[in-house]
Amino acid sequence: MTLEGKMLIGQDAVTGSQAPIHAIDPATGKRLEPAYPGGSQAEVERACALAEAAFDDYRETTLETRARFLETIASEIEALGDALIERAMQETGLPQARLAGERGRTCGQLRLFADTVRAGEWLDVRIDPAQPQRQPMPRADLRQRQIALGPVAVFGASNFPLAFSVAGGDTASALAAGCPVVVKAHSAHPGTSELVGRAVQRAVARCELPEGVFSLIFGSGRVVGQALVEDRRIKAAGFTGSRSGGMALWQSAQRRPDPIPFYAEMSSINPVFLLPEALKARGKDLGEAFVGSLTMGAGQFCTNPGLVIAVKGEALDAFIESAAEAVKAAGAQTMLTPGIHDAYTQGVETLGDSDKVREIARGPQGEGVNQCQAGLFVATASDFLGDEALQAEVFGSTSLVLECADISEVKALAEGLEGQLTATLQMDDGDTETARGLLSILERRAGRILVNGWPTGVEVCHAMVHGGPFPATSDARTTSVGSAAIQRFLRPVCYQDLPEALLPQALRDDNPWALGRLIDGKREA
Amino acid sequence: MTLEGKMLIGQDAVTGSQAPIHAIDPATGKRLEPAYPGGSQAEVERACALAEAAFDDYRETTLETRARFLETIASEIEALGDALIERAMQETGLPQARLAGERGRTCGQLRLFADTVRAGEWLDVRIDPAQPQRQPMPRADLRQRQIALGPVAVFGASNFPLAFSVAGGDTASALAAGCPVVVKAHSAHPGTSELVGRAVQRAVARCELPEGVFSLIFGSGRVVGQALVEDRRIKAAGFTGSRSGGMALWQSAQRRPDPIPFYAEMSSINPVFLLPEALKARGKDLGEAFVGSLTMGAGQFCTNPGLVIAVKGEALDAFIESAAEAVKAAGAQTMLTPGIHDAYTQGVETLGDSDKVREIARGPQGEGVNQCQAGLFVATASDFLGDEALQAEVFGSTSLVLECADISEVKALAEGLEGQLTATLQMDDGDTETARGLLSILERRAGRILVNGWPTGVEVCHAMVHGGPFPATSDARTTSVGSAAIQRFLRPVCYQDLPEALLPQALRDDNPWALGRLIDGKREA
Repeated sequence: MTLEGKMLIGQDAVTGSQAPIHAIDPATGKRLEPAYPGGSQAEVERACALAEAAFDDYRETTLETRARFLETIASEIEALGDALIERAMQETGLPQARLAGERGRTCGQLRLFADTVRAGEWLDVRIDPAQPQRQPMPRADLRQRQIALGPVAVFGASNFPLAFSVAGGDTASALAAGCPVVVKAHSAHPGTSELVGRAVQRAVARCELPEGVFSLIFGSGRVVGQALVEDRRIKAAGFTGSRSGGMALWQSAQRRPDPIPFYAEMSSINPVFLLPEALKARGKDLGEAFVGSLTMGAGQFCTNPGLVIAVKGEALDAFIESAAEAVKAAGAQTMLTPGIHDAYTQGVETLGDSDKVREIARGPQGEGVNQCQAGLFVATASDFLGDEALQAEVFGSTSLVLECADISEVKALAEGLEGQLTATLQMDDGDTETARGLLSILERRAGRILVNGWPTGVEVCHAMVHGGPFPATSDARTTSVGSAAIQRFLRPVCYQDLPEALLPQALRDDNPWALGRLIDGKREA
Repeated sequence: MTLEGKMLIGQDAVTGSQAPIHAIDPATGKRLEPAYPGGSQAEVERACALAEAAFDDYRETTLETRARFLETIASEIEALGDALIERAMQETGLPQARLAGERGRTCGQLRLFADTVRAGEWLDVRIDPAQPQRQPMPRADLRQRQIALGPVAVFGASNFPLAFSVAGGDTASALAAGCPVVVKAHSAHPGTSELVGRAVQRAVARCELPEGVFSLIFGSGRVVGQALVEDRRIKAAGFTGSRSGGMALWQSAQRRPDPIPFYAEMSSINPVFLLPEALKARGKDLGEAFVGSLTMGAGQFCTNPGLVIAVKGEALDAFIESAAEAVKAAGAQTMLTPGIHDAYTQGVETLGDSDKVREIARGPQGEGVNQCQAGLFVATASDFLGDEALQAEVFGSTSLVLECADISEVKALAEGLEGQLTATLQMDDGDTETARGLLSILERRAGRILVNGWPTGVEVCHAMVHGGPFPATSDARTTSVGSAAIQRFLRPVCYQDLPEALLPQALRDDNPWALGRLIDGKREA
């Protein structure tokens, strides 16, 4: 499996004409071969034209055909074997076990969407039969199903080179919905992207689907990314990354003559609330467990717990002491890219330089380049609320503990937070009433609420919400993880008095796909 | 029931401080009393503060409480009796029967949402039970439900003073979702708005709900409307009206520090395709029926058929001849407002002045002011596609017939259309294959597809889609009519490992609300 440094436009492999991208091994700072010449407007247009040409056929494939396609992608990724893991390790500095696990998650995710496609709940079939005798006016026969939005642009993320990248959740859910996908590869892992892209390309061929169902383009976000979002044939986009990058593309999507949904998952500091009884009973254990979540994967998760909130006092001091010990003992880890490492170092410096913030502990510096040195800081709740700089996400293993005067300040702090992916309560039975008061605030602030767990580790399942109010995402009505993510790429169409010969399979009286249906608003038994 | 010219802020009646609005009787051009002094930023803020204060309690009311509230609003509107219809007639020029019908539709809509709330499908309950034994990692208990987005701004529309206004579909669906509502009344029917607003206000009191659940503000769109959309406490908005008005408010919603969903239903010309066999068999009848739909309510419907598309020839000539006769016989009707009448006159003039357009027939001029004189024009498909001015919606009883060279030009025309609320096929059995080819194009262009019907008359039911790709609406993923409209005001929240005592009722194991649920992705029997 030799890497060729090529983009994949439909079934072709194409060499770009623009400045080349090189992956960098973050553990050494050295360039990796091959070079990936970037794409231009011409390749974006070709990919979008193929996607549009594929759309009508692909969106009307049977549930079984589409499910098998997703399963075939998973098999093709698995067939890449160790070569995929080895290249991803070189390009990301992530350890073997983590990447093997992420591959499992990625393939499991594709298979979950295959099951989801087959189950057909996403079609949301509604039938209101004709009432020819109704007075004063007869009612027509009205049927509704969901159809795919159209070709979708997907932007690979750096921190999950498999699960949120070329064949990650955005791609899987868009393909499941019936949308062709054009992926803009993340420039940090082009080799991993080419390997996975070729696996998807092979799956398209094996399943005899129109080639435009999938393309993969390399290049800069400003050129290729913008061109993709602005292309009139693209009808939605999925993005995971920074707030600035996400908002720039989001704005382009809104400025189009025909604005499109742009799903950006951007920024979250994932507050953890330590309630008094829990803190008193197990502050020391909580400190250790917290640092385990904080330092996992060098803290490079959207759901990394960047904020701890509690009433000040001895119990909190014990937590802080225990967490400080754990931070000092946390080994340094290679970060994903030099850019992420620079931003992390700068973010930690901003905290350290603030006269409102007290440094509690730093981890070992580590040897070599791009090492993440963990950090733990403390500030007061009122200083935090008064200073926007303290509220910015520091992407990496650094967290800020906020000392509150009392529970009402804890609540005020919760009210003052921006939108979050997650909010966590550490609580014991005696904290139930306090928790209840916080819960109604946190439901308005976060997409997922956890009790006595840690926010890292996002289960790929049906009930997951990996989303939340702005700026956690650009669209709080959606999730980017779990089977409900398919809904982002669908829209309803109503069919009035269509003859049987023209009705889509999903809406026929004899229900050939055995779908769950709402008949006159009532679920059919 | 004396009209007081007052805004309703929670349970208070408040006199505005800004320039007064007067309704105008469009049949006479005369001002109607009382004056409605407009609101200011201060009243917007007060209404939004009350809405926010009411939100947590209101969104957690039981399904039964909320359903009864919607039913109580319907009863209170009915209790207004003839006074409501009489005032609405004066303010809109619409006939008594139409307004009585619209009242029935409005109250039926409120009761449909009451039923929808009770059925609870909108909660989309998903439970993935814990798997403590799973290897390599146990799975947490994960549960998802939909919760209300927050306070919603609703903009009343002029053309349905009841069904798309103060207690219309946007308000009913937002209240059903658990969102408090602040209505910006349409300035064309302030008296009707006050009457309905007071009915809602009484329902709030009778149901002992927090007063902030509903407020009604008068004033200019530029001041009060913008202030509402920009208020940080407002989390979504619903609008029905012009493309320019909708887009101005939509842009404000997107420019907020935290962008919010803004559902604007704006502009649609609702193409009707006359397929060859149908045209040959019943061109004359189609012409008559078409003009019935075109002139209903002086054409002041979002779904008014503004475009007819067919292959030119004798059969189309027969249709045009019959439609021309019907247009000439169509009595003039009073339009809703002098502004709408002016815009209509101008739109028809633009068509008449174009050297690409042939006038076929005009209806009688009518006597008195603000009369809608129906119109029928013809152009070629290629001229239409080449001239944006011909593609603009003319709001009123005027339609343009497009002559195509052949069926492939009909298809090219369908491909060239902007997004639409509806697309209609008139077809016979022999047209089935032609219809199939068009259907896959029209599914991408419209929210509702009709066969052998007319687009006016939007059924309020479960399968309806009153929506469609831009510019028909700002969000093709939604409908503003029918029970699925509730989904616009919801977002998912996931609860991980919550103790029973903290779980929302909808998510408890014992399912006290007897909801349909997805357990591990499978629908519970």
